[in-house]
Formats: sequence, structure tokens, C-alpha cells
Amino acid sequence: MNVIETFGHGGNLLTASERFGVSPGDFLDYSANINPLGMPESVKRMLVASIADVTQYPDPGHRVFRAALATRLGLPKEWLLPANGAAEAMALAILGLQPQTVGVVYPCFSEYAQLATQFGAKVVGCYGVEENGYKPEMGEVYRLFEAADLVFVGSPNNPTGILYQPDELVKMADWAEQTKTWLVVDEAFLDFVEEERQYTLADQLESFPHVILMRSMTKMYAIPGLRLGYAIAHPDVIGRMREKQVSWSVNALALRAGELCLQEQEYEKKTRELIAGERAYLTSFIREELGWKVWAGEANFLLVRSPKEKTAEQLQELLGKKGILIRSCAMYPGLTAHDVRLAVRGREENEQLVSALRDIWCGGRWER
Amino acid sequence: MNVIETFGHGGNLLTASERFGVSPGDFLDYSANINPLGMPESVKRMLVASIADVTQYPDPGHRVFRAALATRLGLPKEWLLPANGAAEAMALAILGLQPQTVGVVYPCFSEYAQLATQFGAKVVGCYGVEENGYKPEMGEVYRLFEAADLVFVGSPNNPTGILYQPDELVKMADWAEQTKTWLVVDEAFLDFVEEERQYTLADQLESFPHVILMRSMTKMYAIPGLRLGYAIAHPDVIGRMREKQVSWSVNALALRAGELCLQEQEYEKKTRELIAGERAYLTSFIREELGWKVWAGEANFLLVRSPKEKTAEQLQELLGKKGILIRSCAMYPGLTAHDVRLAVRGREENEQLVSALRDIWCGGRWER
Repeated sequence: MNVIETFGHGGNLLTASERFGVSPGDFLDYSANINPLGMPESVKRMLVASIADVTQYPDPGHRVFRAALATRLGLPKEWLLPANGAAEAMALAILGLQPQTVGVVYPCFSEYAQLATQFGAKVVGCYGVEENGYKPEMGEVYRLFEAADLVFVGSPNNPTGILYQPDELVKMADWAEQTKTWLVVDEAFLDFVEEERQYTLADQLESFPHVILMRSMTKMYAIPGLRLGYAIAHPDVIGRMREKQVSWSVNALALRAGELCLQEQEYEKKTRELIAGERAYLTSFIREELGWKVWAGEANFLLVRSPKEKTAEQLQELLGKKGILIRSCAMYPGLTAHDVRLAVRGREENEQLVSALRDIWCGGRWER
Repeated sequence: MNVIETFGHGGNLLTASERFGVSPGDFLDYSANINPLGMPESVKRMLVASIADVTQYPDPGHRVFRAALATRLGLPKEWLLPANGAAEAMALAILGLQPQTVGVVYPCFSEYAQLATQFGAKVVGCYGVEENGYKPEMGEVYRLFEAADLVFVGSPNNPTGILYQPDELVKMADWAEQTKTWLVVDEAFLDFVEEERQYTLADQLESFPHVILMRSMTKMYAIPGLRLGYAIAHPDVIGRMREKQVSWSVNALALRAGELCLQEQEYEKKTRELIAGERAYLTSFIREELGWKVWAGEANFLLVRSPKEKTAEQLQELLGKKGILIRSCAMYPGLTAHDVRLAVRGREENEQLVSALRDIWCGGRWER
């Protein structure tokens, strides 16, 4: 069987398209966690108008975008490093800091272990507690700081949606300093959290030179095809990461789009409201009407457990035939063969998903 | 003094803009070697029409573009690796093959030594012979293969324009196999050479598993802001490079543009004719009317030596004030403080350059 997740996002859509005979653009994609409002109009217009500019090299110093970012975040630009997606920022942290052992909290984004392995580090992990929404015991996390040179923590975590509380973040940052272990907080989905500034160490990094925050701009602004992310950390760390960055790795359109995205605060607010409402809508449908388990978390996706008899892959197959692509989480360490991740989208799409789920799970039984 | 080359291309334009008070888009840019015909119309139209597609991830397996490339080159797709510009492809070669010592032939593209140093390799070099158009003695090159684990050779070489002959390429490839040294041939500017297929080892790589060819698509198709390049090598080598590639590093618009560019064979032919004619025009003006030294080479740029009294930086300053940006080669090992590189552009722009050069060098003397 051609596993849809072989290539990761983008690849998924193409593989699924070959398998289900639906053209990639026609899928209702619940496998990628992208803002259902799409790209901000201002960004779309600017991109169309800027196509001719790709005949010039991007500024490898990212000066204009970096300055805009510094203004928006209220942080000095020396603490910021734009990157070709958060994935590049994470790779640069590993290349620049050269940990021999990388710690992760399962279940989590597969790129943490993937990047560690790619660049020669050993991976150690602890597991979140299912009954606790897959949040780990903090004592287990502390042992990671003792065992590893660099620890990845997602907040909100993918695919569980867990958001660490401010005191927990500070506790982990203290451990990072005590044990001289790098703490990489992956904040790729933090933009979707209300009052997000409370849930980041961005304003306390002067006290925590071993902490690096990773941000993605592709989720909130719906530009995963363009690639844009950044790191926030002490200038010494930024310098070490920058040393490993290949020239011009961030393309010119991504830099231009990034500048404009930073001005879209109303759009961000509207998105957060939409996501909160739709997350509740989908969660209550799946829990109450289907009677399935859901870990709703604080991000723009849900972790859902398919009842026995059908695995995640079979559920993916059933929905795939209806033109809906979901993410199987069967391969995530710490999860089960029945776990899937669903993006939270707009009401119209969510109603299509609800109706498809109703079709295949009618009256508490799988369709025949 | 704020050296214009601090940031590299893209950065140059911005730095120069700050220095000369000309907006980056208004410069006549002779510092970057981009096709003066600009982007093919088909690509421009497709990009405008495809902006909405950036809301999806790029395929990290690059399957559609890679298949198109395989067809165009007549090579199996397993021998090809798309990359985020040739710069990423070179970085992946170093990360994947882990040479301890990298050999270069000065003067050459500064990224070779830069990337080697970035990823922990030592750099050794030999020098081209000025009287011989900066072509190196082949015996010197052989000693590089003995001394290094990986040797970079540009053909045509930047900034000298030297093209290695087919027998010289085979000789170097033989040495690579004999000494078990990787040979990386940077063919970023090969597209501008007539009968280019004669001057590449692309069809002989089965015999040369230690040879890797690097291609750029940003020069011929004028898309440096989008970033696109690729490597050609034995599938084992491609596999080792691919292992170090960060997911989604090639953005979605670059992949789509790349597909279309490969169909632009008429455009490529027209470009080669234009470049050959304009290279001759600029060369004869600079040699005969100005009486300056020129190494014309076989690519879309010229290496030019500014006469005594004015250094490359001063010439850059004089032209910068007239809105023309050129590349100082003063920092290239093996060249002198008087060397500059000029792109070959279309006749209209070249006449502006000629007129500006006439202004500042009238009757064999510098303007006052």
C-alpha cells in the first residue's frame, strides 16, 4: 500500500490524488493545518504585482523583512533569524549548536527526530500521558534535559494541541539554563492561540540564553508553498545558526509577503475567533454525535481516535474516496493505529466533513 | 566604507541603493549575471495565475518537476536532485559527502570556500594563470585532487568565464576516480554556452560515480528571486545529498516555474545568440576604445581590469553614482584591486553602460 504520508505535506496531496483519482486542487484538505481564510487579500495582490521582481536576487541579509519583524515583535533585530520555513530554522539550530543527543516529547511533529537524525544526532524521548491530553509529566521532561543536549517542545504541540502554561515554560527554560541544554520551543501554531503573547518566552529571552523559539508564518497566513519562518534567540545563538544558513535560502516573494503579513493583525484576530468556534463545533460533533475520542487542544487541528474495526488508514481511505484528505497519525510514536489529525477549517468545509463522517459512521456503525 | 559586496547578490542592490540614493529597482544592474531577456512570458503568466496555489505545501519529493527534468535531460530521475538554488545543491554535497578538505581553483565563485568553511571543511586552492585567461595548469589541478576530498570546478568559471574542454573534463573526472576525490563541476552558467551538451559530463556519469554536476535555473530563466537549481550525479550520491535536504526547501512557485522553463528551448537559443553578440560588442568597446584589459570567457559576463589610479571600488563608485551597479572582484583571491565583473545585457542597456564608461574615461584619462 502506498502510504500517503511517505512524502509529507504537499507530497501527501499528490500521493492521495494518484490513489483516489481526485486532482490535488480538488481535495478538501484536512491533512495540512492552514488558515481556512486563505492568504490575506493584501498579500495576494502584492504577490501578483511583484512577480517581475523575482528577476532579482533576494537579500540574503533579509534586512527589510527582519526590520519589519523586529518592529512587530518589539524585539531587537539581532535576536531574529528569518528562514526558509520553520523547518530550515530547526535544521539551522541543529547544525549550529551540534547537539549529540536530541530530546523530544512524544507524540510530536516528526521533523524533530527526522532533522536530528539527518544531521547525526541521537534521539531520546519521553511520552505524554494519554489521560492528560498527552501532556507529559514534568518530571519526565526534566529527565530529558539531563539526557539530551537539545530538547524540542511544541507549544501548542502537533498533533496533540497541548499548550504549555507560562509557569511551565519558565520551568523548562530554567532547566535549560541549569543543565546547559538547548530548549527549542516550536511555536509554529502559537498564532492561533488567544492571548498568545502570554504563552511565549519571547519577552524573557535575556534571562534564557539557552532558549530558541521557532515560528512559522506559513500556517496563519496560508503561505506554505512560499516557505517562511523565523527563529528568536540570543544574538550569539542567532549568529551560530546564521553561520550555517545557505545564501539566499529565503526567496524574494516570501520576504515580501512576510512584510505584509505582519500588518494583518485584524486578519489574525478574525482567524483566531473562527478557529475557536469551529474547533468547538467539530469537537462537539465528533464527541457527542459520533461518540469518538477527541483531543481538541489549543491549535487549529484536532487529534481524533477512530473506533475499533477501522484503523486510521482505513478511515483515511473512506474519506479519501469522498475527496477529503486527512492525516493518519498511526506512525507517530506514542499514538495508536486508530489516530488521525483533522485540521479545523471554515463552517462550509466543516459541514462537508461532518456529513462525510456521518455517512461512514451511521448510527454507531461503519458503513458497509 | 560600507562594502557593497558584504551581503552578496540581492544584498548588493540594497546596499548600493542606500549608498547611491537610487531605488533598488531603478539600478541598471551589471553585478548579477541574469538573462537580459528577463523571465519567459509563459513563466510570468503562469506565476501570476498560480499565486493562489501557495496555500498548499510544495511536494517535498519534487516529483512533477523532477520527472520533467528527467525528460528534458534524457536522464533517469534517480540521477537528479532539485534544490533551493544551486547554492543549496552545493551545500548538500558538502553535508552529504563530508569532505575534510575542499579544493578550489582561484579565482572562482566565493560560495565554494564559503560553504566549505560553513560546514567545517578546510579549503586548499591553486591559481589560474593570468596570461592564460586564468585557466590553471592541469598539473596544478591534479595536485588539488591529491590534496582534497572534494574539488569544485566552475565551467564556465565565475568570474573568469573559462570553459573547460571536453577532454579536460574527462581528465579531471578520471583523476576524481583514481584519487577517490569528489569532483563538483559547477555548470551554473553552462546554459549560456553554444553546443553546451558537448561541454558537460552529464552523459558520461555512469563511468564517473565521483562526479557531481551543479546546475542553476535562475540565470538563464531570470528567476534568482524564486531560487531553483539541481544536481546531477550517481543515485548513491543523490541519495546522500537528499538525506541532508530539509523538507519543502524548494518552494511551490519555483517548482512550477521550473517545469515551464524546461520547455523554453527557443528562448534559450535566442538568449545564447544575444549574449554572444553583446559579449563581443562590450569586449571590443572596452578593449579597443577604452584600452582596458578584458577576459571575455564563454559566459554572460566579462572580467575587466580597471587601469591604475582607480580601483575596482572607485570604478564601482563612479558608475554607482550614474545608477549602474557593477561587481568589484577586489576580494576574489587571485585577482587584483582593479578587477570588476560586468554582466552582458541587451544592447539598449549596454549602450548606457558604454556611454557611462566613456564619460568617466574620456580620451584615456579619468574624469575629474
